[in-house]
Amino acid sequence: MAKRKDSKFRWTHRHLLGLRELTRQEIEFILDTARGFEQISTRSVKKIPPLRGRVVVNMFFEDSTRTRNSFTLAANRLSADVIEFTKKTSSVSKGETLLDTAKNLEAMGIDIVVIRHNAGGAPKFLSRNINACVVNAGDGFNEHPTQALLDAYTIRRQRGSLDGLKIGIVGDIAHSRVAGSGIWAMTKLGAEVTLIGPPTLMPAKVEQLPVKVSCKLDDVIEHLDVINMLRIQFERMGRNPFPSVREYSHFFGLTVERMKRAKPDIIVMHPGPINRGLEIESEVADGKNSVILQQVANGLAVRMAVLFLVNQVSVKEDKTKKI
Amino acid sequence: MAKRKDSKFRWTHRHLLGLRELTRQEIEFILDTARGFEQISTRSVKKIPPLRGRVVVNMFFEDSTRTRNSFTLAANRLSADVIEFTKKTSSVSKGETLLDTAKNLEAMGIDIVVIRHNAGGAPKFLSRNINACVVNAGDGFNEHPTQALLDAYTIRRQRGSLDGLKIGIVGDIAHSRVAGSGIWAMTKLGAEVTLIGPPTLMPAKVEQLPVKVSCKLDDVIEHLDVINMLRIQFERMGRNPFPSVREYSHFFGLTVERMKRAKPDIIVMHPGPINRGLEIESEVADGKNSVILQQVANGLAVRMAVLFLVNQVSVKEDKTKKI
Amino acid sequence: MAKRKDSKFRWTHRHLLGLRELTRQEIEFILDTARGFEQISTRSVKKIPPLRGRVVVNMFFEDSTRTRNSFTLAANRLSADVIEFTKKTSSVSKGETLLDTAKNLEAMGIDIVVIRHNAGGAPKFLSRNINACVVNAGDGFNEHPTQALLDAYTIRRQRGSLDGLKIGIVGDIAHSRVAGSGIWAMTKLGAEVTLIGPPTLMPAKVEQLPVKVSCKLDDVIEHLDVINMLRIQFERMGRNPFPSVREYSHFFGLTVERMKRAKPDIIVMHPGPINRGLEIESEVADGKNSVILQQVANGLAVRMAVLFLVNQVSVKEDKTKKI
Repeated sequence: MAKRKDSKFRWTHRHLLGLRELTRQEIEFILDTARGFEQISTRSVKKIPPLRGRVVVNMFFEDSTRTRNSFTLAANRLSADVIEFTKKTSSVSKGETLLDTAKNLEAMGIDIVVIRHNAGGAPKFLSRNINACVVNAGDGFNEHPTQALLDAYTIRRQRGSLDGLKIGIVGDIAHSRVAGSGIWAMTKLGAEVTLIGPPTLMPAKVEQLPVKVSCKLDDVIEHLDVINMLRIQFERMGRNPFPSVREYSHFFGLTVERMKRAKPDIIVMHPGPINRGLEIESEVADGKNSVILQQVANGLAVRMAVLFLVNQVSVKEDKTKKI
Repeated sequence: MAKRKDSKFRWTHRHLLGLRELTRQEIEFILDTARGFEQISTRSVKKIPPLRGRVVVNMFFEDSTRTRNSFTLAANRLSADVIEFTKKTSSVSKGETLLDTAKNLEAMGIDIVVIRHNAGGAPKFLSRNINACVVNAGDGFNEHPTQALLDAYTIRRQRGSLDGLKIGIVGDIAHSRVAGSGIWAMTKLGAEVTLIGPPTLMPAKVEQLPVKVSCKLDDVIEHLDVINMLRIQFERMGRNPFPSVREYSHFFGLTVERMKRAKPDIIVMHPGPINRGLEIESEVADGKNSVILQQVANGLAVRMAVLFLVNQVSVKEDKTKKI
Repeated sequence: MAKRKDSKFRWTHRHLLGLRELTRQEIEFILDTARGFEQISTRSVKKIPPLRGRVVVNMFFEDSTRTRNSFTLAANRLSADVIEFTKKTSSVSKGETLLDTAKNLEAMGIDIVVIRHNAGGAPKFLSRNINACVVNAGDGFNEHPTQALLDAYTIRRQRGSLDGLKIGIVGDIAHSRVAGSGIWAMTKLGAEVTLIGPPTLMPAKVEQLPVKVSCKLDDVIEHLDVINMLRIQFERMGRNPFPSVREYSHFFGLTVERMKRAKPDIIVMHPGPINRGLEIESEVADGKNSVILQQVANGLAVRMAVLFLVNQVSVKEDKTKKI
């Protein structure tokens, strides 16, 4: 499974902005690379030298622990130095533009910018204007590619392949960048994706996406091989997308009761942090079908792979320029 | 003094949760180990490799500079990577439980969690639920073991031994985890401890503790070999534990005047940060009897020892599992 | 240019508090040292070992990204460990004095304190009371020596020397520590400095400074070889120093129009972050005369040089003490 099928394949992207534009082969190459890194996190000495003397900036314009720490640890494990940059402590609060902030960091000799931003497209904008590698750690309602990669990686580790699997993504699809990237990762890798949620939380042109849609979890749960429960994001909820949390839980929460109708080996996923008892009941989150903590562990291997690959391209291009 | 008396002794704890459950021999073993690390902080190159490639998380749910920086520096000196985790920047603000937060960090391959938490027992709870080593950096009104260890270390460095020394701990004993750990460290090492403070600030079942109690500092100061002045913690004072700071200072402040009645070689300690002129007068804090800054310096050696010892057990157990 | 003119010269300062007290030779020695470090930031592996096992504390009592990150990266590149210290997360919020905070950090074995403080003189005060090296990263309205050094470095890289150059500093001179240090750096290196701004924003005893003064940018712009545009610091403006930003921009903003009357090869500088369209128009900030991003890049080399030099003195003195 971890063998590279095509030894002539070369990764050529200096940035990871989203999965929509990647090919199946490229996505698989990231996952194969991650497979090689996975065991490093279980070693006593969790460190290898490929990014020694390279600088990664964690540029998070939205709060995050999980993803930020995961990138920090991934960078540390590759021996990179990490600069933590948050909106609150930065000149952004003095009114500096995103581009000026990034240009300044670039002038300091930054190699990789990991960016989370509330505006969709911010990573792409950066990538067009600075020479450092840009890795999207979540942009608005657009993409969160490393999350979808770690989801795909986790499923592949369980089943060997995603081909033909039926995968349900449940929740506020319209405002979820996890779904935004997941749709592309899963379908490109051969899975059949069903988006499940109230019609008000479906994306605008959902019929143009390569997915099925259902507004009744109970109708489809028995067919699913994988169910990915999105988080109810209270912190984004001025919008009042559904009448009440209680009603949402009733129709879309993954309860012990509902699990009885699922396949016995259904894989239960959640990007975290969990709202226990709301989108998922504790017994399910901690149960035998849950791979939630494996997702977190795999996230590290996937992020190591992404940092490793974009850096490799960057180092190669820089050498070429000098010649 | 730094020689290990019993070469057959083996440290076996994967966690440091408190001193109450440790034996005299175990406490002395930590202090002996710290003695070996002490000089590293005075070298030009303050770094040794034992924790290289290991990850320490500083998980502080309460503000702290001193203790947090001390642990960070101790970890750096042992070549560990450190992840700084604070309540404000974490998913805890999204309502995640302590256990989920910790489980997630563990899934990322964390080796040691240094935790400060406002709830007594939080470190023990963690230690029962995750595989990483847990080091208590202060939990509620319960324990703050590394503080008491550095206090004991500092006294031992001055006097060779604590046996038979008369040690006074002065202040808000009931709400002090410094006292909570100190009582056990000092008495186990052979000292006689007197708790000194207004009766309202004594712990509930003080008569069950192996200590003497006094509510008049002036009655006992002349007998003390060591006086440990606790901090007036204004930041915790909605409770109004004494009529006024002025009155408290009058009866329990360590003034130049009061020092005249103490033994000439009394050791003056304070866990910091100091409220100059309140619990201690500046001239005393900076005077010849004060070891306050030595305490800080020794804290580093003690924390290096603790991280080193728990990590050693963890590495050994992990190897055993694999065989 | 980077050759050291006098091989017998020895750097002897354990601190960098300001440029007012440095000689031309000392300033040039820093710049020469920086010249040697400049190319490290363009390498693939941006790391050299001179400060390995040394600890730098970034002690910022005012918000900063640029300068703080620049010092962090400079320290990382020299292989030092860095402790980030901010007012918000520190015991300063518990009422601890600056000196106690610093003494405590020193007791932990800190080697270099990089301090930014709102009180002019705070770095000097520290340097007299602790043994660690102190580097001023901006103190009140006094000095910001590394900024002026990087400005001088940038000009020297463009023109080979500052001798005889006409340099204008434009803006709120009275409250600018960039100007405060710049005046000394530029004049000592042989340039003629003109301070340009409304009379209300000139320093109190400006006639005692070795500078010219003008309150009309249009009168002097055509003579300038270098123009350094200070930032309008809205965050410090309870004081209402000029009637309106619009009026200020009109008389002192660096517009495309105004640039037509400047020398074709005038060097345009700004310490950042830029208020685009206020003190400088975007086309000018991003134009061919602008060296704003070079300033940022050079800042790293200059800060590496400063950390390297003060550390060298400190290591030497410590060795001498031990003998």
